[in-house]
Amino acid sequence: MKDTNYPTFDDVIAAHERISPYIHRTPVLTSSYLNDLSRADLHFKCENFQKAGAFKVRGACNAVFGLPEEKLARGVATHSSGNHALSLAYAAGRRGIPCTVVMPRTAPAAKKAAVRGYGGRIVECEPSTTSREAVFADVVAETGAEFVHPYNDLRVITGQATCSRELMEQVDGIEGIVAPIGGGGMISGTCLTVSSTAPGVKIYAAEPLNADDAARSFRAGHIIADDAPVTVADGLKVPLKENTWHYVSNHVTDILTATEDEIIAAMKLTWERMKIVIEPSCAVPLAVILKNPDVFAGKRIGVIITGGNVDLDKLPWMQG
Amino acid sequence: MKDTNYPTFDDVIAAHERISPYIHRTPVLTSSYLNDLSRADLHFKCENFQKAGAFKVRGACNAVFGLPEEKLARGVATHSSGNHALSLAYAAGRRGIPCTVVMPRTAPAAKKAAVRGYGGRIVECEPSTTSREAVFADVVAETGAEFVHPYNDLRVITGQATCSRELMEQVDGIEGIVAPIGGGGMISGTCLTVSSTAPGVKIYAAEPLNADDAARSFRAGHIIADDAPVTVADGLKVPLKENTWHYVSNHVTDILTATEDEIIAAMKLTWERMKIVIEPSCAVPLAVILKNPDVFAGKRIGVIITGGNVDLDKLPWMQG
Repeated sequence: MKDTNYPTFDDVIAAHERISPYIHRTPVLTSSYLNDLSRADLHFKCENFQKAGAFKVRGACNAVFGLPEEKLARGVATHSSGNHALSLAYAAGRRGIPCTVVMPRTAPAAKKAAVRGYGGRIVECEPSTTSREAVFADVVAETGAEFVHPYNDLRVITGQATCSRELMEQVDGIEGIVAPIGGGGMISGTCLTVSSTAPGVKIYAAEPLNADDAARSFRAGHIIADDAPVTVADGLKVPLKENTWHYVSNHVTDILTATEDEIIAAMKLTWERMKIVIEPSCAVPLAVILKNPDVFAGKRIGVIITGGNVDLDKLPWMQG
Repeated sequence: MKDTNYPTFDDVIAAHERISPYIHRTPVLTSSYLNDLSRADLHFKCENFQKAGAFKVRGACNAVFGLPEEKLARGVATHSSGNHALSLAYAAGRRGIPCTVVMPRTAPAAKKAAVRGYGGRIVECEPSTTSREAVFADVVAETGAEFVHPYNDLRVITGQATCSRELMEQVDGIEGIVAPIGGGGMISGTCLTVSSTAPGVKIYAAEPLNADDAARSFRAGHIIADDAPVTVADGLKVPLKENTWHYVSNHVTDILTATEDEIIAAMKLTWERMKIVIEPSCAVPLAVILKNPDVFAGKRIGVIITGGNVDLDKLPWMQG
């Protein structure tokens, strides 16, 4: 469903106040090596240091802590095999309300353990859209829980918008922001903040070439959804939806893509040089920056490092 | 040789001023997960984010930028296969003076490339003490360069002391500091700062059980040197020397050890939970903290993360 009552920057400020007891104001790091290499002035907003290991906790906390009293007893529910599952469980745990997450039975054991560690309940489904939708419908029917979609939810988008608000406060004179794009929640939040507070700042979305449905949507002027793209950047496989398409189509400057090899090289370079653990998804921005010096060289650029939840036993540069 | 003209805290302040244009004031990170696990209040001083990837650049910069004019033309020299090699090359490069490093021909190619990248010259030796000493004597005879020992040099120790000075400024109410011990440069610098400015703060050195010569020296009351200990914490294989023994024997509260498995587990836990890349050597403090709750629980503890230069293709939890 498409909402039309889009949030304003005042809503972002209110969200920030609502969630600030439960999130970190994450640091911004720089690397003179990567500046030399890119010939740009890069400022990395480190959401890998965020609670639950990813920016997703911002949106989840905004949805959960904004719930009216009468909805608390029934709790929240979502479907996700990734960081949104952890984040919603974390947020619900902090508010002391029930949280049910529908996860494919094939999801990593570590992710399931983390959801349970935050007090969330997992209901397993088969790894298919049909199964997930059927199981999720049953969960909602049974619990009456409030559905918090991973990205196509304006409360979630408003929460994610607090990330670029912090970045703009932490770094003066930013000329452009680069963030990864999957379903578009982080990019939509970035658009919400930047279009309201600094409309001259360019917004670039970075996408794996192997899952470039957002780039193709952007050029076609309507949503194109791929069914099951294969990419190392597993947070970026999902398609745009109505609410994120609203922001992407109205405010994004461009969507740039990188190959799997470029993403893995940028990920390893970030670990080696910046000494931080980042997910493959958040290496896509650096990959597109290094690939497009005509766009980025000489500019002061904010880069959103979206998360750091990685399986350390399966690093992509060690595969096959 | 043993110096007797030990530096004062005024020397540390002067060193800090001297080196501050060339180093980072590194951040202090915390982890609520690790606090819960250890039942301590841990504050991690992140020298893995330091220039050249390790605290060693503090001591190297203090030696290089403190050199009198008449010594500049002949430059500096050292022997090291590790972070001191990179750091001295970096410091010399920033001052524009020659730097020669004697490295075993078996040293990692990445380390050699980094030394050359900073403008250092490498002279290779065989991987034995005899060969290293002979080759190094030739280098000094040929160049007349100033020898900057990796740790048994008071200029180096004074430089390392700036790290705990920053930590004490960044975190109020620290009750103890834990740092790894190999040759003892970082621990000696910590002793220098803490004994001068906060003598009530306890200083714990953390050492691999497989290379526990410092712990045995501490209990015996004199230096015991092992020849070629085998440990994953490859920065901690070297023995104490006269100058570091002075600080260790006078100011260290205790030296605690951890097994190889405990070190690797603490390293992986730090990567997973704190999302930072740290060397095996700097996991030893967390390993001893988790192992000794009777010593650390309930206390506010500073932990020095000494460096982040790791071969990402050979992670210890992925070995055989």
